Amino acid sequence: MATINENFLKLQAGYLFPEVGRRVREYQARNPDAKIISLGIGDVTQPLAPAVIEAMHKAVDEMSREETFHGYDDGHIGYDFLRKAISENDFKPRGVQIDTDEIFISDGAKCDTANIQEIFGLDNIVAVTDPVYPVYIDTNVMAGRTGTANQNGQYDRIVYMPCTAENIFVPALPDKPVDLIYLCFPNNPTGAVATAEQLRQWVDYARQNKAIILFDAAYESFISDPDIPHSIYEIDGAKDVAIEFRSFSKTAGFTGVRCAFTVVPNQLKAHTKDGRAADVNYLWHRRHSTKFNGVSYVTQAGAAAVYTPEGKKQCRRIIDIYMANARLIRESLAKLGYEVYGGVNAPYIWMKTPDGLSSWEFFDRLLQKVNVVGTPGTGFGPSGEGYFRLTAFAKPADVKEALQRMANNL
Amino acid sequence: MATINENFLKLQAGYLFPEVGRRVREYQARNPDAKIISLGIGDVTQPLAPAVIEAMHKAVDEMSREETFHGYDDGHIGYDFLRKAISENDFKPRGVQIDTDEIFISDGAKCDTANIQEIFGLDNIVAVTDPVYPVYIDTNVMAGRTGTANQNGQYDRIVYMPCTAENIFVPALPDKPVDLIYLCFPNNPTGAVATAEQLRQWVDYARQNKAIILFDAAYESFISDPDIPHSIYEIDGAKDVAIEFRSFSKTAGFTGVRCAFTVVPNQLKAHTKDGRAADVNYLWHRRHSTKFNGVSYVTQAGAAAVYTPEGKKQCRRIIDIYMANARLIRESLAKLGYEVYGGVNAPYIWMKTPDGLSSWEFFDRLLQKVNVVGTPGTGFGPSGEGYFRLTAFAKPADVKEALQRMANNL
Repeated sequence: MATINENFLKLQAGYLFPEVGRRVREYQARNPDAKIISLGIGDVTQPLAPAVIEAMHKAVDEMSREETFHGYDDGHIGYDFLRKAISENDFKPRGVQIDTDEIFISDGAKCDTANIQEIFGLDNIVAVTDPVYPVYIDTNVMAGRTGTANQNGQYDRIVYMPCTAENIFVPALPDKPVDLIYLCFPNNPTGAVATAEQLRQWVDYARQNKAIILFDAAYESFISDPDIPHSIYEIDGAKDVAIEFRSFSKTAGFTGVRCAFTVVPNQLKAHTKDGRAADVNYLWHRRHSTKFNGVSYVTQAGAAAVYTPEGKKQCRRIIDIYMANARLIRESLAKLGYEVYGGVNAPYIWMKTPDGLSSWEFFDRLLQKVNVVGTPGTGFGPSGEGYFRLTAFAKPADVKEALQRMANNL
Repeated sequence: MATINENFLKLQAGYLFPEVGRRVREYQARNPDAKIISLGIGDVTQPLAPAVIEAMHKAVDEMSREETFHGYDDGHIGYDFLRKAISENDFKPRGVQIDTDEIFISDGAKCDTANIQEIFGLDNIVAVTDPVYPVYIDTNVMAGRTGTANQNGQYDRIVYMPCTAENIFVPALPDKPVDLIYLCFPNNPTGAVATAEQLRQWVDYARQNKAIILFDAAYESFISDPDIPHSIYEIDGAKDVAIEFRSFSKTAGFTGVRCAFTVVPNQLKAHTKDGRAADVNYLWHRRHSTKFNGVSYVTQAGAAAVYTPEGKKQCRRIIDIYMANARLIRESLAKLGYEVYGGVNAPYIWMKTPDGLSSWEFFDRLLQKVNVVGTPGTGFGPSGEGYFRLTAFAKPADVKEALQRMANNL
């Protein structure tokens, strides 16, 4: 008899966004004329940069001729041309030396942050921030690294690190030992960033406890403050204790193109239960080459164009559009008297709900009174209760219209 | 202290192809003038069909304009247009009704056959053919569903079903109960196919034992015999017990484009240990939407073009090129006195090594005497010892040249 992985039964019912979608569809059905604007899901709206488009057309043409056709991406970890461009452009200018064999190209930072736990033992204690991107938790639940969930939706054996206005959404070090630590800066959902000093504390903690930091830097290109690190490897010693995840999804509008990469330093070690050191880069390489088969050549060619001089300028311009949205949201809401966080070094604005409303109550009020959709903070964890996430990824005209409606009718 | 998944330490050293690559590189370094021809790795060489190229260009253009830009593939299981085309073209004409919500688009059949085991319990007994595509086994080892390997490289707790010339490479039903059964027809590496009657025995076995068949049909488009089923769902009752994997990699030359799909029937059930039925489609959907983020829009647009009238004709022509290669290899080798299997309904030719040579001995002889590379059968399992795999995916001129050399100098 084929049995199921019963860890799946521990998963809490709703992934957040389906419930948001359900409420929006219901409202739209009852109000067919309502022009709903979404500042909810973090999906981009600007078209790809012309340099990327050109590179993808060229790559498609190469696929049409026998002499220039590309089959499997040998080794499954990405073309040299892309891994070199990443090393040269994302890390070298920040004083960080990353070898190309430390870079693994993939089809998404979601996939990588979801899959990375597979190379670690089930006995590791996992620490996550609260609120948090749900993928980090759900994948550990599915793997069997947790117990069941309590009333708050928090799982036994996971260590939750609360992030609230009081600690400016950067968590304190845990008061009990943890082994795998998921950090995401600039943060989804709060838009918070971590200073070099704060990251150093985490790196020191990991070094002292032989813990590993899983550092999600998918939003690094939205950092505007020159003092904020873009990579955890800007912190001395981080290559001994950290894996870093990057994505072209938000940097270059690749949500529908699918390309990302993960850095696993050659010097990073984890251990067997009896204390022998094991090479994490090797484990991820084995996992990657056994369960994955490389990223589309056309996609990788497009990603490489992000690093050309024109590509850089064009992608910068797209990010500027989103960050202008972020500024407008932040400033408009502040003017209306809301308590607002994020949106300076991140495309997310994290606001306190007014009048003591719960996150879902505010969701409903916003949807019904002004036909604007956001994301209830509680969907990211109990510490998100009383908060609400707005994204800067909508079209500028929609952002303006949404804020106008909030000013006039809320 | 972060610990590793120690199941990885059970994995046998070499994934087959790195060792092949190593020997080839060494030989080439010592013999820089040798013009080596590879009939080894199953990678395609023909360019994409013009209809696919046109659709991809159009999709890239759509990504360049705000009005037609595509972000995330909502729901992560693929665009309706592609899932409808699959249902209408791959299944309906064969009398099989597959709903679009039973089809999950992914970036590769390797990934899907690797990931599928995650939704099943660790207590399942896994059955595989011997020889076998190594991914089925390695992923179960990594998950902890096996013990360690013996001298032959066979893992404790896996049930191996020998496939040799004696059973025409279609395995007998296992003599002990098994829960998850990996079958691949047309087969990689042997090129064997299963008749409807043979598949019916497996479906009956699975129904009687509440087992689940994981049916890899990645090579179905190479079937030329009209009586051979393309889908396991052509067998009555299979939708209760089977998951089917398909790929555009070989059908349409997508090894470098990355698109595949998996069919999980809504009626398919697995069970909790205490015997409650659980919906496998739901589990795969949860896994897919949590650990995956959809396939590139450009890729899906290209895949849909495979089902247009021109796309079908053009892809058929490409397959005909490979099957002409297969016929030439088969007939030439038979004429030279080799014992040859496969290559009629599959792009793989499985030959007996001559003179009692081991698989690797024949590999070395072929490489050194005629500069032709194939794949040692033993790399696919102990029952592959004394066999050798040649693929039909090379360029026709290279195939002719390789066979000429074998005729003249071996």
